[in-house]
Amino acid sequence: MIVFTDYLWFNTKKHQEFIRITDDIAAIVRKSGVKEGTVLVSAMHITAGVYVNDWENGLIHDFQEWVEKLAPAGLNYRHHQTGEDNGDAHLKRTIMGHQVTLPITDGKLDLGPWEQVFYAEFDGQRKKRVVVKVMGI
Amino acid sequence: MIVFTDYLWFNTKKHQEFIRITDDIAAIVRKSGVKEGTVLVSAMHITAGVYVNDWENGLIHDFQEWVEKLAPAGLNYRHHQTGEDNGDAHLKRTIMGHQVTLPITDGKLDLGPWEQVFYAEFDGQRKKRVVVKVMGI
Amino acid sequence: MIVFTDYLWFNTKKHQEFIRITDDIAAIVRKSGVKEGTVLVSAMHITAGVYVNDWENGLIHDFQEWVEKLAPAGLNYRHHQTGEDNGDAHLKRTIMGHQVTLPITDGKLDLGPWEQVFYAEFDGQRKKRVVVKVMGI
Repeated sequence: MIVFTDYLWFNTKKHQEFIRITDDIAAIVRKSGVKEGTVLVSAMHITAGVYVNDWENGLIHDFQEWVEKLAPAGLNYRHHQTGEDNGDAHLKRTIMGHQVTLPITDGKLDLGPWEQVFYAEFDGQRKKRVVVKVMGI
Repeated sequence: MIVFTDYLWFNTKKHQEFIRITDDIAAIVRKSGVKEGTVLVSAMHITAGVYVNDWENGLIHDFQEWVEKLAPAGLNYRHHQTGEDNGDAHLKRTIMGHQVTLPITDGKLDLGPWEQVFYAEFDGQRKKRVVVKVMGI
Repeated sequence: MIVFTDYLWFNTKKHQEFIRITDDIAAIVRKSGVKEGTVLVSAMHITAGVYVNDWENGLIHDFQEWVEKLAPAGLNYRHHQTGEDNGDAHLKRTIMGHQVTLPITDGKLDLGPWEQVFYAEFDGQRKKRVVVKVMGI
């Protein structure tokens, strides 16, 4: 059994930014040597998410508008009494999810035709990390 | 270590439909021979989900009404500028989740008394797939 | 390969209560002997969740207020025709998520600086269980 660990680093230019990471994950899977197994992709910071959906800019815009509606910035969150101002980012990342597990079959990510993996930053402009854990044979 | 892969196919009659798949997953786990491990169950299409909750038709109705309220169909989603009309389905599946990992103990799905696994279709009437990846010993 | 299973039991005093379980998970990982792998932490009851976020009471309050807004108690859920009164709890746990998979590196939970694991009870004052499945080498 192989267990292989790697990390992806992000420092987005914008406060909110979604970044496609499918190819980075695929490269780590290749490096791991795992032919059959899974790979866990998980945000290590609590105002960022990782999700699987379409690589289409209109839909990415829709997702960003939608989480703004469900978890608006600028509300009087109690979390802000600590001096923070990112209460909404914690909620937004909860809607999108903060991790995915992808199957590996025949040495490759076993994804459907439109599945793409995204890093979803909701409180950017600082260094953040995603852990990638490959397990299998 | 065993890694065993299978797929479930769906082509729902209705545009939106939730289908219980617990028994299908249990059968794949039996076939895999894994006695201790986990099974990943993940929708391969981006307008469908996989979730665990109650097998009760009233609650399934509540879930469907609820995701309609949080992510309504018929809005002017930017995704629709591509010719698609299913922007809401992408959002709905994000609320419900698109994958679960189930523990296997003693050769069986190690589920609580009311846990049932469902496939949640939000843009049906076409062929879609769920990947099932069993890992363990 | 090691596969190690344990369970956490809860019987909360309040109807809704969030409990930090990071240390309990870390202890189970130590007991398992796994140095490299993952641990699945999954609620076995369908009105409870497991999520990763900040250990900050203000934010926990924000999460509880937020899920109340998105999935209010006291509505006329169809699920209540069965005699149940917890329709909202099923929806709330769906927003927060019901399971997480945590990476194990060097014998320890490989978490970011602020990542903490929580059990989120939405229909408490009764015995409930979380399954913890450690896998790795």
